[in-house]
Amino acid sequence: MLRIAIDAKGGDFGPSPIVEGTIQALYACKKSFHAILVGEESELKPLVPDNLLKNISFVQANECVNMEESASGAIKKRDSSIYKAIELVKEKKADAVVSAGHSGATMGLATLKIGRIEGIIRPAIATLMPTLNSSHTLVLDVGANVDCKSEHLFQFAIMGEAYAKEVLKIKHPKLGLLSNGEEPSKGNETTKEAFKKIKRLDSFVGNVEGNNIFDGSVDVVICDGFVGNIVLKTSEGVAESITKIIKHNIQRSAVAITGAVLMRKVFKILKKQVDYAEYGGAPLLGIDGCAIVSHGKSNAKAIKNAIFQAIAFSNSTINSQIQNQIAHYKEG
Amino acid sequence: MLRIAIDAKGGDFGPSPIVEGTIQALYACKKSFHAILVGEESELKPLVPDNLLKNISFVQANECVNMEESASGAIKKRDSSIYKAIELVKEKKADAVVSAGHSGATMGLATLKIGRIEGIIRPAIATLMPTLNSSHTLVLDVGANVDCKSEHLFQFAIMGEAYAKEVLKIKHPKLGLLSNGEEPSKGNETTKEAFKKIKRLDSFVGNVEGNNIFDGSVDVVICDGFVGNIVLKTSEGVAESITKIIKHNIQRSAVAITGAVLMRKVFKILKKQVDYAEYGGAPLLGIDGCAIVSHGKSNAKAIKNAIFQAIAFSNSTINSQIQNQIAHYKEG
Repeated sequence: MLRIAIDAKGGDFGPSPIVEGTIQALYACKKSFHAILVGEESELKPLVPDNLLKNISFVQANECVNMEESASGAIKKRDSSIYKAIELVKEKKADAVVSAGHSGATMGLATLKIGRIEGIIRPAIATLMPTLNSSHTLVLDVGANVDCKSEHLFQFAIMGEAYAKEVLKIKHPKLGLLSNGEEPSKGNETTKEAFKKIKRLDSFVGNVEGNNIFDGSVDVVICDGFVGNIVLKTSEGVAESITKIIKHNIQRSAVAITGAVLMRKVFKILKKQVDYAEYGGAPLLGIDGCAIVSHGKSNAKAIKNAIFQAIAFSNSTINSQIQNQIAHYKEG
Repeated sequence: MLRIAIDAKGGDFGPSPIVEGTIQALYACKKSFHAILVGEESELKPLVPDNLLKNISFVQANECVNMEESASGAIKKRDSSIYKAIELVKEKKADAVVSAGHSGATMGLATLKIGRIEGIIRPAIATLMPTLNSSHTLVLDVGANVDCKSEHLFQFAIMGEAYAKEVLKIKHPKLGLLSNGEEPSKGNETTKEAFKKIKRLDSFVGNVEGNNIFDGSVDVVICDGFVGNIVLKTSEGVAESITKIIKHNIQRSAVAITGAVLMRKVFKILKKQVDYAEYGGAPLLGIDGCAIVSHGKSNAKAIKNAIFQAIAFSNSTINSQIQNQIAHYKEG
């Protein structure tokens, strides 16, 4: 049975949503996995209903990594929940780890302790963005790889393609390279060089632009971590601004308030479609194991979905697929 | 009297919205400038009311630059409307140029014919993005400078600061460097180096993130043209997707349609607040003159506002301010 280590000290809102998400996940998949909650056992145990105590075990961790800490400092905290959770994977006591904590620390510890897939230069964080057609686009890297060479982008492409095929179960995924224009001549020096390498992949459809992330035209979008972070924050900023402008102006008129009430269902659909909690978390790709990073503000639903991602990842052959592809193109 | 050359063959919708925008601008500012429409005189003249014929003159151009053409090819088309419009500025027959045509060609021709401000390595295209507080944020570069060194970003900062002060009339503008985190330690190699240079400017508030473009926390955001293009396209993509999801789901329910009717005013405010036509165009900064690039899909209002931008730019001392600052920091 799959054993999933869950960092129960990691989120912004304490252990409650994390435990609640774990419970929801256990019920939803008929207790088909075993959860290991890493944190203050005395705090966690009372949150678990008696009938689930055989599906959940506890590992004590006395510290947690704060969001303000540097990743390099954080990875030295041996008694932190994320350190202990990752160590469980390293020691083969768990098959996967889910954390809503410090993503840099998770990335650093996972790379250091669990190690990289053979041939992978740098692991990447991949995130799912909502699209118009109720589907998602996988964007990577959105992690810490701010200065990338074309070889790194090529490896991200291999990893993204593998995730789309093996975990998202898309038979013929379409993969694009994020650029400032669709023509192959567009891009900066690094992406132009990467284009030549990535075009060897079956899934590659060419350069894509920022708007293509949301229009469902591709399944995977490749960029460096600097650009990826800016894309994430920009899209969050636009969505928030639109929401705030609408809310602010509704409040100024009784007619508009009535209108908003009548449109409630539409806004609910919109919210569901753009809600990160629907997707759960961001997988670390290139790690010789399975680690899912969740949003610090994760609610129970987000944690539940992150656990589902960990299950889908662990039940797939993604990592051997990545290793094979890396080896194939190294020889080629 | 200020003479503004207007590329009347440049937009996606033919000369009508361009001539109409020119007429609106002339009326709105009490005929305080002279317009030079560059295009097919026989086509343009009938669109101008008789009482404005002394405020508008015509310069014949037989060709136009298509959006598909390369900038390098386009700048050789001596009989194109944009070539002739820019030549008018070069020959001191016009003080400014407005074009809704090929921005790469406009940029190339302006640099080649009008020339750069002394000390400027690369001109940049700056664009205004809407913010929550009904103000705008100037983002540059959104042009063709895809591979930038820290020195280029520093010059963009000088130009952006000058535009905010001299044209937008913001006394104490706040300027941020777009990065993957607010801490000075965040960024890629180039932005980290640029940070050290830009911090010499009074207006510099540090690194900003993608969402800060829209929350009104800064007036100017500096990035390279690769990132700038991706930011533009990403924000367009998010805004379009949200609109489409709302529209699509409204159509599926009579109740929601009623709600939308009652919320009409709110949506109108939203549309106005995010409508590029409200801002007009994007100034080329670093050119030894004034050139405003408008959206290819410009309607009359967008052209009118682009002309207002050209007037505000031409009536300011921005270019000498840029030149002074470049010289100051070269010596410093």
